[in-house]
Order: sequence, then C-alpha cells, then structure tokens
Amino acid sequence: MRLGIGDDAAILRVPPGQELVVSVDSLVASVHFPEDLQASAIGHRALAVNLSDLAAMGATPVWALLALSLPSADEGWISEFARGFFALAERYQVALVGGNLARGPLNITVTVHGFVPSGRALLRTGAQPGDQLCVTGWLGDAADGLQRLQAHMAMTETDTCMQRFCFPEPRIQAGLVLRDIASSAIDISDGLAADLGHLLQASGAGAQLQIDQLPLSSSLLQHRTQDQAVNLALSGGDDYELCFTVPTERMPLLESHAREFGCPVKRIGEITTSNSLQYLRNNNTDWPLPVAGYKHF
Amino acid sequence: MRLGIGDDAAILRVPPGQELVVSVDSLVASVHFPEDLQASAIGHRALAVNLSDLAAMGATPVWALLALSLPSADEGWISEFARGFFALAERYQVALVGGNLARGPLNITVTVHGFVPSGRALLRTGAQPGDQLCVTGWLGDAADGLQRLQAHMAMTETDTCMQRFCFPEPRIQAGLVLRDIASSAIDISDGLAADLGHLLQASGAGAQLQIDQLPLSSSLLQHRTQDQAVNLALSGGDDYELCFTVPTERMPLLESHAREFGCPVKRIGEITTSNSLQYLRNNNTDWPLPVAGYKHF
Repeated sequence: MRLGIGDDAAILRVPPGQELVVSVDSLVASVHFPEDLQASAIGHRALAVNLSDLAAMGATPVWALLALSLPSADEGWISEFARGFFALAERYQVALVGGNLARGPLNITVTVHGFVPSGRALLRTGAQPGDQLCVTGWLGDAADGLQRLQAHMAMTETDTCMQRFCFPEPRIQAGLVLRDIASSAIDISDGLAADLGHLLQASGAGAQLQIDQLPLSSSLLQHRTQDQAVNLALSGGDDYELCFTVPTERMPLLESHAREFGCPVKRIGEITTSNSLQYLRNNNTDWPLPVAGYKHF
Repeated sequence: MRLGIGDDAAILRVPPGQELVVSVDSLVASVHFPEDLQASAIGHRALAVNLSDLAAMGATPVWALLALSLPSADEGWISEFARGFFALAERYQVALVGGNLARGPLNITVTVHGFVPSGRALLRTGAQPGDQLCVTGWLGDAADGLQRLQAHMAMTETDTCMQRFCFPEPRIQAGLVLRDIASSAIDISDGLAADLGHLLQASGAGAQLQIDQLPLSSSLLQHRTQDQAVNLALSGGDDYELCFTVPTERMPLLESHAREFGCPVKRIGEITTSNSLQYLRNNNTDWPLPVAGYKHF
C-alpha cells in the first residue's frame, strides 16, 4: 500500500506474479442479522463473510474497504463494531484502505482484495467425476444459532451455535492449503445444497452426498434432532465453510496436510457423471430433497 | 480481467508499472437522493460519484463492483437502474467484476478501481503558496437541481441544473490531463468550501478565493440571485467537479491543453502561505464566511 485512507482514493501495489482477487458483500440489518445483534459481531461478520469468498479462491487477504450506513452516529455502537471488525482484520493482516460513512438504515458493505499467484486460484469449475467431495468445519450450527437469536434468546459465550453465527471463522488457512490439493472449491453461505449445486453446475457434474457423513457438531445435536440438524446443514445457510473436491489420488495429500487447515475436514461424498445431486443414507435409501437454500428475495 | 462475475470472487491483473487506485462510495435513498428519483439517474450517479474520486487522482477507470440493496425485486426499476449504470460504465470502459444483490432499504455501494502509472497519482498534498487555484465545470447547479427535485418539481431534460444533479459527468479526462500539470487535486462532492478546505489542510496551506470568479451557469442564475448562487457554489455540494492547483509556470500548459479537458476550466484564486481560506470580492471586500459543506451526520 502506498497511500491509504485520507485522499480521494487509495493507491495500492500488486506484486509481480500475483493476481488480484476481489469480492463484495453486504449485510443488511433485519435481513442478514437481527437488528439488536451485538455490534462487535456485526463488525466481525461483515468482514468474515467477505474473507470467506477469498478463502474459497485460495487467496491471501490484503486490503478491505468498508462502506457503513447507519441511522445515527452512535459512538458506543461504532466503537464496538470497529472492535469486531479490526480484531479479525488484524488476525489476517488485512489493511483498511478505504471507507465511506453515511447516514441511513444499517447496511455494511465490505469489499475485500486478496493475492493469489498467477493462475493458481481455486475455481468452482474443476470438479471431475470420481473426485472426493469434502467440507471444512461444521454445518448447520450458524442457522441454529441465528434462529435462537431471532427468538430473542440471550447470547451466551458458551453457546457454540450462536457463537458460530456471530463470529464465523473464514477458512483462509484451509483455502491456502487447498490450492495444491483441491480441483474446485466454493464457500457455503446459502447452505450446502444450494452452494454445492452452484459448484456442480459450474463444473458440469453431479454428486452423491452421504447424509450420514455431514459434520454435525455436538452443540447442534443438543438443540436439534438428527433430521432437523441435517436439514439445517443442507439448507440453513450462514455456515461460511468451504466445500471442495479432491482427485482421489490426492486424498493422501489432504490427510498429510490435515493439521494445517485450522479446522476439521470431512469427506461427505463423491462427484458423479450424472447431472444431479443425490442424497444417500447409510442404508442406501434416498433422503427427501431438502428445501432450497437462502432466498435473497 | 481473467474471471469476472460467477465465481466466489473476480481474478484481476494489474499491468506492470501501474498502481491500483481504489475507492468506495454509497448512495442512500432519501439521504443522498430523493427516493422517487428516476432509476436511471440513481444508476448513473452511483457510478459517477465513484469515478469522480478516480478522476481526482488522475486515474484511468477499469473495474467496478456493485452492491445493491433494494426493498423488492422490481424488474422495471432494476432495468432502468442498470441502463443508467452501464451507459456510463461503457462510456469509460469500466467492467463490472463483482456484485451483490440484497433485500433491504435502497442503498447502492460501488467500489471502483483505476490504474495510474506508478508514482504519478494526483494527491491533495502538493499545493504550494503561489500556485493558481482552478476548478472544472460549473458549481452550484446540482444543489439547485436537487432542491427543486426535493420540492417535487417535475424533472425536465431541458433543466440543466436538475440534469447536473441526476447525471453528473465524472471529470476523468480532466484528471488524466492534470497528471502533467496540477500540483494537487480533489473532487468537490461536499461543496467547494469544505473540499478546498480538505485540500488546504492536506497541503498545509491557505488560499484566497475570488468569489466573482466562481463558474456559475446561466441556468443557475435563472433560478437564483447572484448571492444565492455563490452560496450554493461554496457549500451546496454534489458538484463532482475537480478543484486543483497549478504552479504559475505551468499555467500556459493548462491553457494549451484546455480543449482536452472535456469541460471549461476556470482560475478562481491563489494558494497563500496563510493557514486560512479567504473569500474576496472584486471590490476587495470580504465575503461573509459560507455555512459548512454537506454534513454526513
């Protein structure tokens, strides 16, 4: 960075041999989070959901721009928001290089930039029949946590599901390791069913998904039946985990790098030549198709 | 650009020898424009106010990301909005490389990227005592147009002031020419008084501003008295013109390139060693200090 906030625009330098990976995402109060959610969680989430897109590309985060519209200049709220935002930014060495503050209904729009060595980005398009289908972390927790926050249940630090909604961990480390291993990747923001669907469509492939292999946390299973938990994992949304595919011959590589991901990684199925996504149980019976993922309108 | 919309993020390439100039700006309904403003004007303005920041840096626009929150998926509105946005994008060869569509109160946040040869960006910091103070285009028109739109007067294509609010022309060409001529530059979004104040503060200088030299359009003077027009020019806001300084020895260069600016350019004062901004009339009497520029809160 040559010049950050303070002039009409930032002046930035991209090192030779690196491509720039750029993404933008907005969070709207009452739509993407409860209006009364603690401000530090809103700040964290606003950056985390964007870093998750960089993770899915295998990029190293470098810069962010923050456009914040809020109803009033509430200094306590802004300071809490900033605490959540900058704690995450510092952890991944993301520099805030531009910003805009406006009066208006609460809306946080973040643009993130990352670097990836030229030609090395992870795409949605590379899945091949026979590839193993994998996922990071846990699925369904955030949706469970959000539903209980929406029911005005008090946020507690020991409630893993609420914490996972409020403070999702972008899988940056996993994305970097996967650059050398995965044939395709996507981040799961709208639910596994919908986002895996996007990956399969981009790759022109299908998949068999082993329902009983979905990574469900013990916290989730404390609050939900097995079938409820599966439905949240498939279509609850807000997980910000990575779904990716690995050629079978590279699975040993995945296992030997397991400790570098910063989170568990689980095989949940296989890419097929069909054009559809099939859900199987251990007993080989079909799982009823899940409802669609997050609807934006 | 290697990969645009469709994956988790765009993958972009910055040519060797170029720096990246990045800026973000939001427009909020009822705050920055009347909610019932025609959608094509909202689309144009959302991009134009951002391109204006690139113009002030002397950058060539290349990419934009659009985050659009809107209350309902009104196809007619979206298509009109897109018409305004893309007409301007095409004119300046700006590629849309990322987007986000969300449900929520109307909010348009655009992030723009431009290129500038390394070390050649125009900054706010270079104004020196003795430099001539200049401005592009016309001042006060947009504020006059907005006030009449807010009073629900019908928009007409022959009303230059309304047109200038709805379809501001980013001074990209002017910015490119000024890279070789100006010692500092800023774009005027909050009104000349406030934004010239920012430039002077960044440069650690003062200025004498010749009130009678302000570029006031005949359209503005049809609707307003001379004094009202001066006040709108100083603190109305929304002009998106460039205010810049030129070392006296380069003024002939400015004149010889006048036709390349794509708009009139006018000398309106001089940089001084004082720390203040002084307003002078032809008869050398002081002008009463204007009210402050646009208040964001």
